[in-house]
Amino acid sequence: MVPANQWIKIKAPATVANMVCGFDILGFAVNNPYDEMEMRWMERNSNEPSITIINIDTYQLPTDPEKNVAGAALYALLEEYEALKNGNAKIKFEIKINKLIKPGSGVGSSAASSAGAVVGANYLLGNIFSKDDLVRFAMNGEKIASGVKHADNIAPCIFGGVTLVRSIFPLEIVALPSPQLHVTIVHPQIEVRTSDARSILRQQVQLKDAIKQWGNIAGLVAGLMKSDYDLIGRSLEDVIIEPVRSILIPGFDELKLRCKQAGALGGGISGSGPSIFMLSKTKDIAEAVEKEMNQLYESIGLPHHTYVTTINQAGVEITE
Amino acid sequence: MVPANQWIKIKAPATVANMVCGFDILGFAVNNPYDEMEMRWMERNSNEPSITIINIDTYQLPTDPEKNVAGAALYALLEEYEALKNGNAKIKFEIKINKLIKPGSGVGSSAASSAGAVVGANYLLGNIFSKDDLVRFAMNGEKIASGVKHADNIAPCIFGGVTLVRSIFPLEIVALPSPQLHVTIVHPQIEVRTSDARSILRQQVQLKDAIKQWGNIAGLVAGLMKSDYDLIGRSLEDVIIEPVRSILIPGFDELKLRCKQAGALGGGISGSGPSIFMLSKTKDIAEAVEKEMNQLYESIGLPHHTYVTTINQAGVEITE
Repeated sequence: MVPANQWIKIKAPATVANMVCGFDILGFAVNNPYDEMEMRWMERNSNEPSITIINIDTYQLPTDPEKNVAGAALYALLEEYEALKNGNAKIKFEIKINKLIKPGSGVGSSAASSAGAVVGANYLLGNIFSKDDLVRFAMNGEKIASGVKHADNIAPCIFGGVTLVRSIFPLEIVALPSPQLHVTIVHPQIEVRTSDARSILRQQVQLKDAIKQWGNIAGLVAGLMKSDYDLIGRSLEDVIIEPVRSILIPGFDELKLRCKQAGALGGGISGSGPSIFMLSKTKDIAEAVEKEMNQLYESIGLPHHTYVTTINQAGVEITE
Repeated sequence: MVPANQWIKIKAPATVANMVCGFDILGFAVNNPYDEMEMRWMERNSNEPSITIINIDTYQLPTDPEKNVAGAALYALLEEYEALKNGNAKIKFEIKINKLIKPGSGVGSSAASSAGAVVGANYLLGNIFSKDDLVRFAMNGEKIASGVKHADNIAPCIFGGVTLVRSIFPLEIVALPSPQLHVTIVHPQIEVRTSDARSILRQQVQLKDAIKQWGNIAGLVAGLMKSDYDLIGRSLEDVIIEPVRSILIPGFDELKLRCKQAGALGGGISGSGPSIFMLSKTKDIAEAVEKEMNQLYESIGLPHHTYVTTINQAGVEITE
């Protein structure tokens, strides 16, 4: 257990959920962007709040811990911690959040806060919880952010690498090995609300489309585990979600086409968008892909950010 | 190229399609039962038939090569062979089929004939076609048998082991590594026509069920490739096809329950049934599972056969 009052520093990576064909089940972490946090624990008197949140960025996210995703995740952890200690351990957390992952960009900004907070808290308390427990706690943050307890950003944020959420109830995360992959992300500065991106989906799908989709999912998992880049590329196809959601993202089809012509293995919408990601075999290709993204969005005058990065294998890290 | 008139012997394994959650995409070959064939090639005069089929079993399957699955597969191969030779190679095949896999049992009887025939023909001709080509030819046999050009039995029969049909058009087969698995199969002596088993399926599925299914497919592929038996077992769950098709098979739910209680990892309907398969970690468990199957079907007075076998890694073999 880290001594009371001693600050630790935390680095929580951005994540790409869905991974094209793996809607709600696949995701991976990236090395850039990431959130930074500082955190400490102290003993708590019975009339004190158990969580204090200090935002040191400019996004003006709620500091009321019941409305803040990190707060909701920490409450879930604290409740279980105090139950484990039979109510004899009254503690409180202070957390400073420097959000470098823009909220609403579709690369797991809320997941980074939730996951970073519970991994940090667990470290302070002597790592008493498993990674599966931490995912479970952090999912309470996702519920605040999007109304749904989903784990497809939380899981890769905590485990690092590529993760499969085989089942939500009961929760089962499977870490999937992957070869070196370079990731290019573009964030067009438009707003796509996760709840809107969910509500436009059809609740029924054609069996023949579902079969195509599970062929691609199986192909993607096999490709990652065999380090077969071409198989990964061919499997990055989504016949169910992308055709519906991509209409919310300006220039999507053209962008995807140009990125693949520039050598990308494939890619698609990151989470529920608006960010788009592409996977490439080399850094040079990932940079050529970034150039295509910049050119396209400059030509239509859409403000945007890009990142060229790699898959993050570590997940949330305690850096100090 | 094998000299003209010289007979070769062929062994073509039974196969289990779907593998519970992988409807139309996954399948594996088993070491028992299997079909035996003999085959030779000869030069052909222009007025002679190019394929002669001799059945040496008692099933009275058609010997007209246009109506016989092996014949249809061989026609497809011959057409491409003669085109490759610019029409200068006129040859004919004679094939004797000893069917040991009962037609209609749901363990790839038609696939074994089609796949065995084209692998044999390819061997006679000096192995000029790839395995992917052979799958393509053999699918013509499946079209005769069930009306649909599916590859989920053909692929494991030709490749051996566990296979993924990532895509049918264009055809892409991915061989999946798997750990040692013991297989118990029970064939209750009832008739389930593949076309009936297809027609009762709903053409639309709930998105939430599709998501569960692709979690399990990804889990099964990862479990096979990681040799994680528990993950394989947990992933052998089908929320879409089995609930509909299992009503065609007497005692299905009870049988599955008892087999799992006896230690099976999991299992389900083989192909479109009526056979049921179970996977186990050891031979002892596979035999205990067989005992449960026998007891249940004896108690309800249903004639049946059982097999205790293992996954066949070789696919169709030339034995002489």
